[in-house]
Amino acid sequence: MMRTRPLKVALLGCGVVGSEVARIMTTHADDLAARIGAPVELAGVAVRRPSKVREGIDPALITTDATALVKRGDIDVVIEVIGGIEPARTLITTAFEHGASVVSANKALLAEDGTTLYAAAEQHGRDLYFEAAVAGAIPLIRPLRESLAGDKVNRVLGIVNGTTNFILDRMDNSGAGYSEALDEATALGYAEADPTADVEGFDAAAKAAILAGIAFHTRVRLDDVYREGLTEVTAADMASARRMGCTVKLLAICERAADGKSVTARVHPAMIPLSHPLASVREAYNAVFVEAEAAGQLMFYGPGAGGSPTASAVLGDLVAVCRNKLAGSTGPGESAYSRLPVSPMGDVVTRYHISLDVADKPGVLAQVATVFAEHGVSIDTVRQQSRPDGGGEASLVVVTHRAPDAALSGTVEALRELDTVRGVASIMRVEGE
Amino acid sequence: MMRTRPLKVALLGCGVVGSEVARIMTTHADDLAARIGAPVELAGVAVRRPSKVREGIDPALITTDATALVKRGDIDVVIEVIGGIEPARTLITTAFEHGASVVSANKALLAEDGTTLYAAAEQHGRDLYFEAAVAGAIPLIRPLRESLAGDKVNRVLGIVNGTTNFILDRMDNSGAGYSEALDEATALGYAEADPTADVEGFDAAAKAAILAGIAFHTRVRLDDVYREGLTEVTAADMASARRMGCTVKLLAICERAADGKSVTARVHPAMIPLSHPLASVREAYNAVFVEAEAAGQLMFYGPGAGGSPTASAVLGDLVAVCRNKLAGSTGPGESAYSRLPVSPMGDVVTRYHISLDVADKPGVLAQVATVFAEHGVSIDTVRQQSRPDGGGEASLVVVTHRAPDAALSGTVEALRELDTVRGVASIMRVEGE
Repeated sequence: MMRTRPLKVALLGCGVVGSEVARIMTTHADDLAARIGAPVELAGVAVRRPSKVREGIDPALITTDATALVKRGDIDVVIEVIGGIEPARTLITTAFEHGASVVSANKALLAEDGTTLYAAAEQHGRDLYFEAAVAGAIPLIRPLRESLAGDKVNRVLGIVNGTTNFILDRMDNSGAGYSEALDEATALGYAEADPTADVEGFDAAAKAAILAGIAFHTRVRLDDVYREGLTEVTAADMASARRMGCTVKLLAICERAADGKSVTARVHPAMIPLSHPLASVREAYNAVFVEAEAAGQLMFYGPGAGGSPTASAVLGDLVAVCRNKLAGSTGPGESAYSRLPVSPMGDVVTRYHISLDVADKPGVLAQVATVFAEHGVSIDTVRQQSRPDGGGEASLVVVTHRAPDAALSGTVEALRELDTVRGVASIMRVEGE
Repeated sequence: MMRTRPLKVALLGCGVVGSEVARIMTTHADDLAARIGAPVELAGVAVRRPSKVREGIDPALITTDATALVKRGDIDVVIEVIGGIEPARTLITTAFEHGASVVSANKALLAEDGTTLYAAAEQHGRDLYFEAAVAGAIPLIRPLRESLAGDKVNRVLGIVNGTTNFILDRMDNSGAGYSEALDEATALGYAEADPTADVEGFDAAAKAAILAGIAFHTRVRLDDVYREGLTEVTAADMASARRMGCTVKLLAICERAADGKSVTARVHPAMIPLSHPLASVREAYNAVFVEAEAAGQLMFYGPGAGGSPTASAVLGDLVAVCRNKLAGSTGPGESAYSRLPVSPMGDVVTRYHISLDVADKPGVLAQVATVFAEHGVSIDTVRQQSRPDGGGEASLVVVTHRAPDAALSGTVEALRELDTVRGVASIMRVEGE
């Protein structure tokens, strides 16, 4: 039952991802047509630099006027791979107004203002699909939104940024410091010239907001996500982690509170046991652990970025959206009915690994232990070590039991006030146990 | 926009999975209603033993007449968790005829005669969903069928049977033999009283047929799947694997031939390197590797069986099918447009690990090597070892390069004919490199 009139697709952006989408649409046209039930035709490609040669794309399709393209009225699906907030947001809502559904890879926009986009899609009866926005080719949005639609997700714990995973993997394997590992990542093309969005955790935080929203059927905005990057992670932290049988990963963690009445979302470096499946995620790969009430623990693993993997996710969405269009239906839209409050970081229950430089004399441990007790934080293990270089200092490594983050950070503040504590060498959360 | 008239669900089978489905439909009714857009109501439960007390299920819903239940005419969705070929097949096709879509967990039936079911669903404009049929709660059917719909899957490599993975994991960790490990699996409830379906690979072969069909858009039946169980795997094989830096797993492998013109599907024990992510899948967990042209390597991991995980998959499908029903549409049906031939095992390109007992005298290796050469099989490594217990015998372990399975098995037959070869101690394929 193949329809012969093609569905028309407008491509906004023709960089690494966009050009790969265009290429596969051409080379795999027959497969796409068979799976959709109608041929798809690239009807226009909006770019910033029209003079650039784009192999395999008819120059007649190229335009710099993205707005005119989405307003044409005959476009069935708009693929948005420009990124950033504007003009992407306006182009997407304009596309909905003019009859098109949208496939987007724009994590920043979805995290910042997904609500506006969802509302516009629903108002006009269009689809908004965005599998490519989180963890590249790894099917994650669709499994969370559809496969687990009959289950209750309690936790999402993942490595969702390839650049930072590459850096931490290098630090772990070679003993390199952060700057050295970043330099290597830049040289190999894993880090951008300005790595801020990756290393400060902004990229991962946007993905955490999207994942938390879908997992908990609740609106979670970028501002709701607690965020720490990995620029402060040192070779010493990595060595400490190793001594504990752990490694350090930059994790995006979305959790439902134990009482089920609120949720949290956060991104920060954390120690995880080497036995945890996320510990063995190497190089720039991504992996996401999902814990659901009935399903138990699931993991999704794969390449988290890159032109081809991201194009795969975009094209999977394109097939779904085109099929919906032909059926006269739409896929699942925003599901935010739970309306759970997003709690601040202080309410998150976690564990700390704290490394202190202390005076090497009797009574220090008792003093330190008292501070923990006063804050209601109970200690799991303490390791005390005189420094080989002497100087009257020792190091004290404390790993706590689980406690609210506010109590843990309060403890650290109080420890800094102690005369016998010369410095707090490092603080890191411990996860995945 | 909540519809108030409930969608009616008939449950066929109320064992471990069915009772968990019924329980979650009751306890999570509000969530399901919010996600579907209408309440769902359990309208009848067909069982074999009506006298059994079923907690939480209204006894008035219980019936032994499954046929009458699916023929009622007011049923929107039938959930089939009976298993087996008949009466499940007739009940499902009858359900389609009487207006219901179907969610099934029945891998045996889908592998045996999916074509009939798909055709019946399409003829009547109904949905047939079956995420629970493969790898329990792990989202796999939907990612393959929808997320990767814009990509080209070249290979699916997975651990899809929890019982056999438990047995092999025990053998690997404790040095136990097959029977001992099977006894432990039985005692712990991981193996059934009659473990044939699991240990002979029938269960995994059914899943391989389903996965290959979806991955390659081609009809693959159970008979097309080459199958070897794990009953012949010995503690010595496991030790050999360890010496090679490998472990042994029972793998389901679906591959597109290098020229893209045919596919293969097979289930057999194989050595895989310890560095491969599938090597670290422990106990009764399942994991499936998918290699796609654009997406690259993806892995899906989770519990492969059990009442709750399977119920999670069933309910995810229930939500999707109910949403389709409300939208007046259906999800993707059978996609077999590629019509690729399924090649026999002899055409599969693989590697062998062969362990021979040979006469301990000069010239044997040359003789053996000649046999490999005559069959066009090139050798990767050979390890020759005199037996400490003497007796004039040595052991020769050969690992081949990749070659057609027919050439490899022909080599082994010819080796058996050599006077100097006293016996073939073990043959195992090597995968995942």
